[in-house]
Amino acid sequence: MKALGLVVEYNPFHNGHFYHITESKKETKADVVIAVMSGNFLQRGEPAIVSKWTRTKMALQSGVDLVVELPYAFATQKAETFANGAVSILEALHCHSLCFGSELGEISPFLHVNEFLIQKKEQYDMLIKQHITSGVSYPSALTSAFKELSNEEEMLDLSLPNNILGFHYVKAIYRQQANIKPYTIKRTSAGFHEQAFVSPTIASATSIRKALLSKEKPITQYVPKATFQNLGEYEQNYGLLHHWEHYFHLLKYTIMTMSNEDLFNIYEVEEGLENRIRKNILEAEGFQDFMERLKTKRYTWTRLQRLCTHILTRTTKKQMSYIGPNQESPYIRLLGMSQLGQEYLGTVKKQLVVPVISKLSTFQHPLLELDIKASHTYNMIFPEPLRSKTMKTEFATPPIRI
Amino acid sequence: MKALGLVVEYNPFHNGHFYHITESKKETKADVVIAVMSGNFLQRGEPAIVSKWTRTKMALQSGVDLVVELPYAFATQKAETFANGAVSILEALHCHSLCFGSELGEISPFLHVNEFLIQKKEQYDMLIKQHITSGVSYPSALTSAFKELSNEEEMLDLSLPNNILGFHYVKAIYRQQANIKPYTIKRTSAGFHEQAFVSPTIASATSIRKALLSKEKPITQYVPKATFQNLGEYEQNYGLLHHWEHYFHLLKYTIMTMSNEDLFNIYEVEEGLENRIRKNILEAEGFQDFMERLKTKRYTWTRLQRLCTHILTRTTKKQMSYIGPNQESPYIRLLGMSQLGQEYLGTVKKQLVVPVISKLSTFQHPLLELDIKASHTYNMIFPEPLRSKTMKTEFATPPIRI
Repeated sequence: MKALGLVVEYNPFHNGHFYHITESKKETKADVVIAVMSGNFLQRGEPAIVSKWTRTKMALQSGVDLVVELPYAFATQKAETFANGAVSILEALHCHSLCFGSELGEISPFLHVNEFLIQKKEQYDMLIKQHITSGVSYPSALTSAFKELSNEEEMLDLSLPNNILGFHYVKAIYRQQANIKPYTIKRTSAGFHEQAFVSPTIASATSIRKALLSKEKPITQYVPKATFQNLGEYEQNYGLLHHWEHYFHLLKYTIMTMSNEDLFNIYEVEEGLENRIRKNILEAEGFQDFMERLKTKRYTWTRLQRLCTHILTRTTKKQMSYIGPNQESPYIRLLGMSQLGQEYLGTVKKQLVVPVISKLSTFQHPLLELDIKASHTYNMIFPEPLRSKTMKTEFATPPIRI
Repeated sequence: MKALGLVVEYNPFHNGHFYHITESKKETKADVVIAVMSGNFLQRGEPAIVSKWTRTKMALQSGVDLVVELPYAFATQKAETFANGAVSILEALHCHSLCFGSELGEISPFLHVNEFLIQKKEQYDMLIKQHITSGVSYPSALTSAFKELSNEEEMLDLSLPNNILGFHYVKAIYRQQANIKPYTIKRTSAGFHEQAFVSPTIASATSIRKALLSKEKPITQYVPKATFQNLGEYEQNYGLLHHWEHYFHLLKYTIMTMSNEDLFNIYEVEEGLENRIRKNILEAEGFQDFMERLKTKRYTWTRLQRLCTHILTRTTKKQMSYIGPNQESPYIRLLGMSQLGQEYLGTVKKQLVVPVISKLSTFQHPLLELDIKASHTYNMIFPEPLRSKTMKTEFATPPIRI
């Protein structure tokens, strides 16, 4: 069986995702679809709108065969670390291809750029460092360095979010010498509009979340029926759809009871930032308010949100250091599978070099501790006894099967 | 002016406290009454039912002339440290007397016992150590050691909570060679019943809090009018009267996101206790539930509640170490004063060797940081913008004047 790998957040799963799965399967001629999905906290440094379990169900009901968790230590990171973790899991699961959405929609520039940068690595790294020292954010530094080095022909616009992720997937494949062939599918709205059937039914996950949280617009036309039902059930059972404001009191509490030393030990807290954080939290009356007070040119919004996530989960530099220099995941946490996914897992089982975890109690690793802590933090906002119940679920839930 | 010192919590101020002030003034022939009062967290390791500001108002409206704060580092401690901190403040304020309530009601046994124990100090300390090693709690060890050493004549029942506090006040006076004369007034219900006017109007603070929180019984007959009004205003303005269950989600969150190392760094967390805490918090659905799971013969309920308070405020062993071996307060935080209190402060001002703080921004000390943190934690349970407002109040409120 040929397995296609996808790197996803499904926050929530929508028609664009469904389109991507369908097209990717056609393109790669895969028999089975494996998604490595972020857990309860996402790359932009925010809580997922519904839990990883519900998002797993959505994925399985819409064509994914196997859902595994991208550990917190990779899921809440800049593109490079995120991609290294995700690719290492897909490689460990013997995927023959990885297909990502990108603004460009053609794979060859991604390959050329990576080959080109391997040749010019030293110059490239030095330029990035120079730009960061001059006070711009990491993504801007990367784009500028790249522009200065490359000529017209090799041009790939690395200021676009999906191009940059794609660039890092390909880079990770090269770096890990993975047996994975990269593919890409254009994912601009223009790209989607070419397909008659998707045209009135595609919206970004951001706009879908906005509509869901504000209750202003129906979302039925933009998501599969399974998504709609799962979101409804979640809100009914848990009383809410998660967003940062729900966690603000915990963030404020943590910051205001931490010493400067503790705060500085948190992952991504750089020299001087701890004073800025402490100064602004006292006045802030909500998360959005806090972020606006915190924001400077030097740090992107996303970077600061990730930082807040690490404070919220109390993730320290030391705890994150267990990702190691290779940035490859030491385990694969199974969240759910279809009949076909289970069969596939059976065929590769004997060749797996990384443990596949379907029950938390069977494996221990400092990075898995972070996943558990993130999950507990995510569930902390529920009232008792729902809080305790969902926390125990994290240990007791077997992988979802459909 | 002769100043009488009292060590109080006023949680809340009731008729028994009023009786104690009146009798103490008669007994000591004092002109002015100074109360050193615990802040927002109390000796039994629980949040005060209303803030220190409201409790200060109650005290001033019922006959106290000067209210100063017993710092968190002393207020949430076993009797010995609590007493050392309190006595050091009363001594610094030039009180000529300290009058405490006790089950015994006679001062001479308190003096004799202290003199006696100074003579037998080594034996006494060794016996206490032996008892603790055998697995009993600190208060039990103290009582047993004392019983084994003393003869009938010197007998003072140190298993009674107010006797033991009184014993430590006197001990602290001896230790600090303070110019304070100790007095005591009997405070059993029998003692109160002898006074015709108080008989149907006295109830313990515990039973008053219980009636307040359950809303089952009116409390008007047990408290001065000022207390009743202040409690009503507080509940109206802040929407609640504080108790531990309000803080349980923060306690659970802190424990579940702390590493074992962090937990072990918390003040009063002993070897092995961190595992017991961690194991029980996942299942616990409320504070009472958690405490019942945590309780063993070795630790008193109060000791464990104090421990939970330190976890809640994230107070570390290192932070507490600033109380130093002398256990004397390095500052005096002024909470409120009457006209007379202000005059008294004027007369002693030039002889003060410890700074008197009426504005937080004017003084810095690691122990004052703990008071601020405790206050922020106390206010954390309010919704925004009330939360931010009360937090800023801590910095902005000048001492209350009546």
